[in-house]
Amino acid sequence: MSRTKPGRRLVHETWGDHAALLARHEGGRDGSVGLVTPQVIDVATPNDPLVLESGERVPHVAVAFETYGELDASGRNAVLVCHALTGSAHAAGRHDAHDVPGWWDPLIGPGKAIDTRRSFVVCSNVLGGCYGTTGPTSLDAQSGHPYGPDFPRFTIRDMVTVQRRLQDALGVRSWRAVIGGSMGGMQALEWALMHPDAVKGIVAIAIGARHSAWAIGLNEVARRAIMADPAWQGGRYPLERQPEDGLGLARAIAMLSYRSYDSLEAKFGRERRPADADALSSSFEIASYLSYQGVKLVRRFDANTYIGLTRAMDEHDIAAGRGRLDEVLGRVRATALVMGIPSDVLYPEVEQRRLVEALPSARYERLVSPHGHDGFLIEYPQLAAHLRRFLTDLEG
Amino acid sequence: MSRTKPGRRLVHETWGDHAALLARHEGGRDGSVGLVTPQVIDVATPNDPLVLESGERVPHVAVAFETYGELDASGRNAVLVCHALTGSAHAAGRHDAHDVPGWWDPLIGPGKAIDTRRSFVVCSNVLGGCYGTTGPTSLDAQSGHPYGPDFPRFTIRDMVTVQRRLQDALGVRSWRAVIGGSMGGMQALEWALMHPDAVKGIVAIAIGARHSAWAIGLNEVARRAIMADPAWQGGRYPLERQPEDGLGLARAIAMLSYRSYDSLEAKFGRERRPADADALSSSFEIASYLSYQGVKLVRRFDANTYIGLTRAMDEHDIAAGRGRLDEVLGRVRATALVMGIPSDVLYPEVEQRRLVEALPSARYERLVSPHGHDGFLIEYPQLAAHLRRFLTDLEG
Repeated sequence: MSRTKPGRRLVHETWGDHAALLARHEGGRDGSVGLVTPQVIDVATPNDPLVLESGERVPHVAVAFETYGELDASGRNAVLVCHALTGSAHAAGRHDAHDVPGWWDPLIGPGKAIDTRRSFVVCSNVLGGCYGTTGPTSLDAQSGHPYGPDFPRFTIRDMVTVQRRLQDALGVRSWRAVIGGSMGGMQALEWALMHPDAVKGIVAIAIGARHSAWAIGLNEVARRAIMADPAWQGGRYPLERQPEDGLGLARAIAMLSYRSYDSLEAKFGRERRPADADALSSSFEIASYLSYQGVKLVRRFDANTYIGLTRAMDEHDIAAGRGRLDEVLGRVRATALVMGIPSDVLYPEVEQRRLVEALPSARYERLVSPHGHDGFLIEYPQLAAHLRRFLTDLEG
Repeated sequence: MSRTKPGRRLVHETWGDHAALLARHEGGRDGSVGLVTPQVIDVATPNDPLVLESGERVPHVAVAFETYGELDASGRNAVLVCHALTGSAHAAGRHDAHDVPGWWDPLIGPGKAIDTRRSFVVCSNVLGGCYGTTGPTSLDAQSGHPYGPDFPRFTIRDMVTVQRRLQDALGVRSWRAVIGGSMGGMQALEWALMHPDAVKGIVAIAIGARHSAWAIGLNEVARRAIMADPAWQGGRYPLERQPEDGLGLARAIAMLSYRSYDSLEAKFGRERRPADADALSSSFEIASYLSYQGVKLVRRFDANTYIGLTRAMDEHDIAAGRGRLDEVLGRVRATALVMGIPSDVLYPEVEQRRLVEALPSARYERLVSPHGHDGFLIEYPQLAAHLRRFLTDLEG
């Protein structure tokens, strides 16, 4: 390892030394934010309810979040990191010694691309989530039961409104950058339009200005898979007996769209499992992989939440109610870094190109990856190089 | 219409005059094979059972087929057209005045690309199908009930074995060409390897030498959707109460892979239905379209059949049991026409390129289409031009 002194800046985060980066990360001493404590605060109360885009009111909203680094006296060194569909506020570090690192840990920490010595980094679970922020699994004070399918419909803009309240509560004057991939990138784009004075830069990765028919269609079949499960019960399932088969199948469908023809071919091809124990399912490894991905998600996620979040994604259209798309993008004042992945079949590069062409101040960086959409959770050396450069420019 | 005299060869089947071709086709006078009569014959009986690749025996196999044109004295002017997953033997003409034309009607008829004045055209429903050939919906003489999930596992090679018996029954000495797209293309490739003396040319459209992990994964989630339906009952559903929701969802998933990002965006974008009658489903037009496609298939197809045929597709690997893939392809003696569609996400062009590179005598033609995999059922002027040229060359 070339980097041993804490405090020395990383100079090796170039395309190709992924293994070195991960090895250093796994060492857990240098560059890690270390143990972090999840926090929860109330940002809406019956006296000050959250008013959704629909006009509906949510009387109580708690937000789960984590912070890394320190807010400086100006209140302007903050970076907001926004998670994707099944993510959480746990972006970096570990909750305890046995915890797995946060979902973007290789990018966030002292000396890392999102440098916690220079920035106060915030990540919060979105409105409607199931990792601590108020959502379908939360108790509805009026009924005394979890909201379930009665949780009000909400949008990406509503997520941003909740984050805006968190910003105020934390004393953040403005964000140096709002950063996210996929659904997180939707939030970054909305931040730039909803609160132009509060955002200096945005980073939108593997996402477009509005959800395509293709992406909506994929979400639709996933939701139908959940609702077709007899355990769905119109969404009124007990939390301990959720529609596991349906949610698992929804995840399996989505996983195909998160990967790519090439990456699945390289990893699985026509490999088979040694024995075909269950005659109902295929003996191909790819079938086993998809099944396993479903089981993994079911253990950590909630079906009503999956439905609510995918609906919010489908509503994503930064032009909605604002005007013509290119004209709306032309109003953005924040500096933008847009990243796309050539093998992404879910949000193909045509969507990022459109963003870059219409945004007044945008740079495009391509993430070279065979892994499709999931590249934004895999290609750390490239992500690190582009994020570091962008954030350093914004500090000036 | 430029073409009025029957018998005059088409000269306008160039890229761009799709509307003219369809208009002429819909006119129903020129170029149509007219009314056709479905036929059924037995090709396996208890005394001469069908022996499957697995070694299992099927005591009785009936084959449903149609023929257009006349077999000449040589017995060598025959063309076999092979259908795809949910297709049937009804490739051309109409069964009666109210019938919709066969699935490749614009390509088959007097003066058309597959010219029934020059060729004896045969199309049969595949083994395991539900359009008249023996399959899961057929009566199992031993049990007295439909086979259902007990229909033996079969492969693309088994389909070809059944077609081979049909060939003998019809007195066809050899096929001028065996032609198919998607699952039909799998059959064409197997014909060239299983019966090299019986095939002069093959046309494989939008298909590869073996099923990819990606394609297997898509079939797997579709099968899981069927099996997750409570009406599935382990496949032992009464034929009049099949798992409609599951089969419909399977079709919706598959439809996404048959189309493309661009075609769905152009056709549906973010359009919505006027009213959101059912709060459970999305109000986007794409959701309605996918649902409708599912309902349409359920009315005309069988769930056990869908599962059996997709399993056969997943087993498709022309190298299986034969050697190294490129070496196996190198053994093919038939002249090949391979067509691919750049927007096909299910069987991308990389698969057709591999075929063309390894086949000793192959020409590649690209079908320019925004419609993805389904282009082989849409791009008639291009298909016609390439097929006509190929078949004319083979006549020489």
